[in-house]
Amino acid sequence: MLSKAKPRNLKITLAYDGSEFFGWQVQPGRPTVQAELAAALERITGCRELPQGSGRTDAGVHALGQVASVRIASPIPVENLVIALNDVLPPSIRVLRVENVGAKFHARRSAKAKTYRYRIWRKAICPPFLARYVTHHPYPLDVAAIQRAAKLVVGRHDFTSFAAVDPEKRRDGEGRSNIRRIYSSRFRRSRDELVYEVRGNGFLHHMVRNLVGTFLLVGKGTLKPADVRTILKRKSRAAAGATAPPQGLCLVNVEY
Amino acid sequence: MLSKAKPRNLKITLAYDGSEFFGWQVQPGRPTVQAELAAALERITGCRELPQGSGRTDAGVHALGQVASVRIASPIPVENLVIALNDVLPPSIRVLRVENVGAKFHARRSAKAKTYRYRIWRKAICPPFLARYVTHHPYPLDVAAIQRAAKLVVGRHDFTSFAAVDPEKRRDGEGRSNIRRIYSSRFRRSRDELVYEVRGNGFLHHMVRNLVGTFLLVGKGTLKPADVRTILKRKSRAAAGATAPPQGLCLVNVEY
Repeated sequence: MLSKAKPRNLKITLAYDGSEFFGWQVQPGRPTVQAELAAALERITGCRELPQGSGRTDAGVHALGQVASVRIASPIPVENLVIALNDVLPPSIRVLRVENVGAKFHARRSAKAKTYRYRIWRKAICPPFLARYVTHHPYPLDVAAIQRAAKLVVGRHDFTSFAAVDPEKRRDGEGRSNIRRIYSSRFRRSRDELVYEVRGNGFLHHMVRNLVGTFLLVGKGTLKPADVRTILKRKSRAAAGATAPPQGLCLVNVEY
Repeated sequence: MLSKAKPRNLKITLAYDGSEFFGWQVQPGRPTVQAELAAALERITGCRELPQGSGRTDAGVHALGQVASVRIASPIPVENLVIALNDVLPPSIRVLRVENVGAKFHARRSAKAKTYRYRIWRKAICPPFLARYVTHHPYPLDVAAIQRAAKLVVGRHDFTSFAAVDPEKRRDGEGRSNIRRIYSSRFRRSRDELVYEVRGNGFLHHMVRNLVGTFLLVGKGTLKPADVRTILKRKSRAAAGATAPPQGLCLVNVEY
């Protein structure tokens, strides 16, 4: 059903449990968050434009506040759109807010900062209700060393050593440069968890998971905190630690 | 591999996310918690005896402290068994404790009391990370009326009105009588949730879900709190409310 209303630009804030999806980005024949949102929008508004996310999240990665933008020609009020989208979407994806925004707003290009959280469960047994949302690491870790290491990535750095070596060129609109500015990067203890929170002006593919994988090597004593500086200088993925598993990661919010 | 060690009796306490299982009880060709636990025990100890649960939980129902008993002939220490079972079991099932118990202990027949919890999410939007563990009811409810109704089932009653009408006779070992004693039954507000907790000497099939479905009718004003007394007296399933959805329900613990 095509409406004749004037097209307008929407900002959609959504939360999702990434466990059941092959990440954000549409992929033929596979369930993805972007595809589910696009299908729900088309069903409700008749609009076939693909909603653009602030960036991709990988399979198994969650979001508390992913943001998408889309132009639609439907006059439906934003409050009703929240209700209608949540009626149509699976319970693992929830639209938290829909806002009318100016024509220039673009979820990816307009983003100023993002915050990610990575949860590490520290006790011997990981509760079944948390297994999808944390990485289980019950082995000894030098938390003070991890905390020192995490601080060393704050500032403007070339993060090539922490970026996935992707065969296909990614088009996340964050430019060809691997330079990013990190505003804060810290680990805190939260009950039985060790929680990493990082806020920056942009993140390369796998960057947070590669940082966490490297910080865990510091925690195990394989690396020293200061080695993080050397790894940054090397500008080689081979210099850093393994990619930490996806399920501990969550996109907390996107700032504009 | 058959061990020649003397058979001993084990008490196994476990937690599980029931979302991915067709309940506790073994069913041919379907994943169930009992079948997963039996397979893990056989793989580790060579023992083929089916572990007996304190009672069944239905598909989608969770457990924080289900208890099973099983006789095994393996000499493996209980601490090692916890680790080995959790290595083999899926992350959605966790063994919390294994204890050596006397030959007379039986998870179902020795049970003195059980506690169940039912979680109702009250806000307009249910977070995707809770969707599997709560029932979403964002509509108005008279909580004070619900709380009065819940108290009326405390004591010794015939709960026929709240028992599933099962075509096949269930053999949960709780006798043919539908009389059960409820020690406590109360609703409390917990942040954005309404939480029901009930403790009793035994529960009939669907009993907690049927109680919750009826209490919700009281909350909506369809029934008055005192109607719960009348429903109990009627001894007819048709007198009570609908069965509340499984995913809000959790077996909290079993007392011996």
